[in-house]
Amino acid sequence: MTSTGTDLSIEEYFDRLHALVRALPAERAALSQGRVLAEPLVARLPLPPQDNSAMDGFLIPRHFSPDSLTVPFTLPVVGDVPAGSPAQTPPPGTALRIMTGGPVPAGFDGLVIPVEDTDIPPGPGPMPETVTVHRLPGRNHIRRRGSHVEAGHQLAVAATLVDASLIAAALSAGVSTAVVHRIPRVTVIATGEELLNGQLPDSNGPMLDALMSATGPVDITRTVCGDSPVELRRRFDTAAADSDLIVTTGGVSAGAFDVVRAVVEDAVERGSYWFGHVNQRPGAPQGYALWDGVPVVCLPGNPVAAFVSAHLYLTPLMRSLRGLPRPTGVLDRPHLTAVAGADFPHPHRPLIQPCSIALDGSITAFPPPGPRMRSHHVAALPGTQGFALLTSPVTTGEQLTVYPY
Amino acid sequence: MTSTGTDLSIEEYFDRLHALVRALPAERAALSQGRVLAEPLVARLPLPPQDNSAMDGFLIPRHFSPDSLTVPFTLPVVGDVPAGSPAQTPPPGTALRIMTGGPVPAGFDGLVIPVEDTDIPPGPGPMPETVTVHRLPGRNHIRRRGSHVEAGHQLAVAATLVDASLIAAALSAGVSTAVVHRIPRVTVIATGEELLNGQLPDSNGPMLDALMSATGPVDITRTVCGDSPVELRRRFDTAAADSDLIVTTGGVSAGAFDVVRAVVEDAVERGSYWFGHVNQRPGAPQGYALWDGVPVVCLPGNPVAAFVSAHLYLTPLMRSLRGLPRPTGVLDRPHLTAVAGADFPHPHRPLIQPCSIALDGSITAFPPPGPRMRSHHVAALPGTQGFALLTSPVTTGEQLTVYPY
Repeated sequence: MTSTGTDLSIEEYFDRLHALVRALPAERAALSQGRVLAEPLVARLPLPPQDNSAMDGFLIPRHFSPDSLTVPFTLPVVGDVPAGSPAQTPPPGTALRIMTGGPVPAGFDGLVIPVEDTDIPPGPGPMPETVTVHRLPGRNHIRRRGSHVEAGHQLAVAATLVDASLIAAALSAGVSTAVVHRIPRVTVIATGEELLNGQLPDSNGPMLDALMSATGPVDITRTVCGDSPVELRRRFDTAAADSDLIVTTGGVSAGAFDVVRAVVEDAVERGSYWFGHVNQRPGAPQGYALWDGVPVVCLPGNPVAAFVSAHLYLTPLMRSLRGLPRPTGVLDRPHLTAVAGADFPHPHRPLIQPCSIALDGSITAFPPPGPRMRSHHVAALPGTQGFALLTSPVTTGEQLTVYPY
Repeated sequence: MTSTGTDLSIEEYFDRLHALVRALPAERAALSQGRVLAEPLVARLPLPPQDNSAMDGFLIPRHFSPDSLTVPFTLPVVGDVPAGSPAQTPPPGTALRIMTGGPVPAGFDGLVIPVEDTDIPPGPGPMPETVTVHRLPGRNHIRRRGSHVEAGHQLAVAATLVDASLIAAALSAGVSTAVVHRIPRVTVIATGEELLNGQLPDSNGPMLDALMSATGPVDITRTVCGDSPVELRRRFDTAAADSDLIVTTGGVSAGAFDVVRAVVEDAVERGSYWFGHVNQRPGAPQGYALWDGVPVVCLPGNPVAAFVSAHLYLTPLMRSLRGLPRPTGVLDRPHLTAVAGADFPHPHRPLIQPCSIALDGSITAFPPPGPRMRSHHVAALPGTQGFALLTSPVTTGEQLTVYPY
């Protein structure tokens, strides 16, 4: 890390920021959506947990199998086996009415005749005295204990995002907690006297809150600070005491009152911060630091610059903090090859261009309507679903790579 | 609506379910991510709210413009204009030091010289006595009040999802609340005696909770009910009193103890419910009803069947309840044309096949490894990111349409 003002490339800046963070410590917690596994998740129970019926129908011993019988035949029905009841064994020459999921004795050599293949109407009704079987199934319709997953089977590797399907799989396999990475604690400090005196509302703080929250559970503290270096220093100290990441907006440019840069340069050991220009538009002025060991990401204050910088740099940092696999670089993220639905603005420098993306089988990307997006054109952002990173002109009908938000 | 047992197509079933719901009533609420506008959102303030500087630099009257001056020239600096301060007018023959966002008097005929084009070093420092200008800018670097958005401009139409960019745009334009659709209240009733007596854990309830929560803010009540019709009827009554939607799992098939179907058929007026088979695998047994006017979606109990049915039918219903644009049909959702990375299972009936989707410029879809996914193969779901709807065989290298979750 250096504190020179030389332009960095987007790739270099991303790598430098990413070097500041590592996955947060692990803890055991209830499985919940958006957490990230810190250890592999292993089945405690086999799936299915016991032999059971795959169909609504009648359980009969193997004796009455395709090898030994011809349809139709009639058997007395000697009992009911709803799901949730104890397993029962039908005596030879009898049948049990059984429900989907109803237990079958472990290893029982028999088969389930689907109700549709008998003379009994499907659905609720009293237990019939006899059942006449019209057709024998091609398989036994018994799901064997552990036939899907054995106890001890690895359901998911470390660094897996916990989602609805993993929750279902884990609970089914008797696992309701997991060792997951701690939820990130982030302090957002929006700076600028104009935010304090009502000249401008703070839009960056709520915007970053929403962007970071969209990456998963996060504990965000938001604050607005004017241009007082003493006050900002106090905010940094408070934030560093209980945050995993500090994000500032504004105050990083070339101005005489750029308080973030001034405070960091005054307080932080040389070599532990950088402010300067990244070769990108919008959002060239950027900076970062370690404050008492806590990473500080200093975003520009213009809302479009803050927005695209958050997508380029901040949300990947959040994902790495949360324990997801570390990207190999700024472009190591989901991307699509789209067709330009309109001419894109000419990039004089690498241009981060928000765009709408239509996913209708083909993939078409459009820059927002209206004039070229400038860094204060915040009202042009709604309706965009991703960004392109343009280094050469793209005209209607040409292909380009887009990165969904 | 009929209560016959005839197979419905996926399309027909989707349309019937969708006919049960409409967007929830509107209320005024703070702008927050995931809410949906019930009315257009209109700028209260112009953007920018006042003339201001686009650069850190020096504000000078137009008199010193490219037409009338040649560089270099030197002017006394008579004041500082940080962002958040009152606007000041530089007297003729003088300059004001001004920050990005610093106010400029309304309509002031002047220009901002970027600090980089002067003899003053960028960044913090005491106000200089004079500034020498080395280069005149090609434009005035003044952002005019309302030049981006006029007061009264429509920022977003009704049925727009509130996201980070809309929050930023709205707050910037002086709007902090909006008329949005109410947050859906959903009761999930997982049925089955086996869930009550510990024979099986309830995995469907938490899974559906996670799936529905991923569509946006939702107020979910979860409950587990055994096979007692009296008790289930009580749960329906309780749920209908304060829910916008009721979702059940299990008890809809052809079994003798299929309590959901039995209770609905007993209690609900003929014509206001349907149970039967949808021409799909997995998840053929489906059902729906109106219970005291509240839509009830009855999903199958097998976890893979419940999972794919939730994606096909339930999450679109949630989006419509929340006020997003109503889909024209079950396939009116984002979709991608992918290349099969492996052979997909042969569909004997329309097959809803969860698959992983690699987005690396090209789009490749893979069915989960291992044997053909059966309706209890819940551990094969993690790692899938969408589904294909297969009606004919798809082998490696062929194209198919995938629907991201």
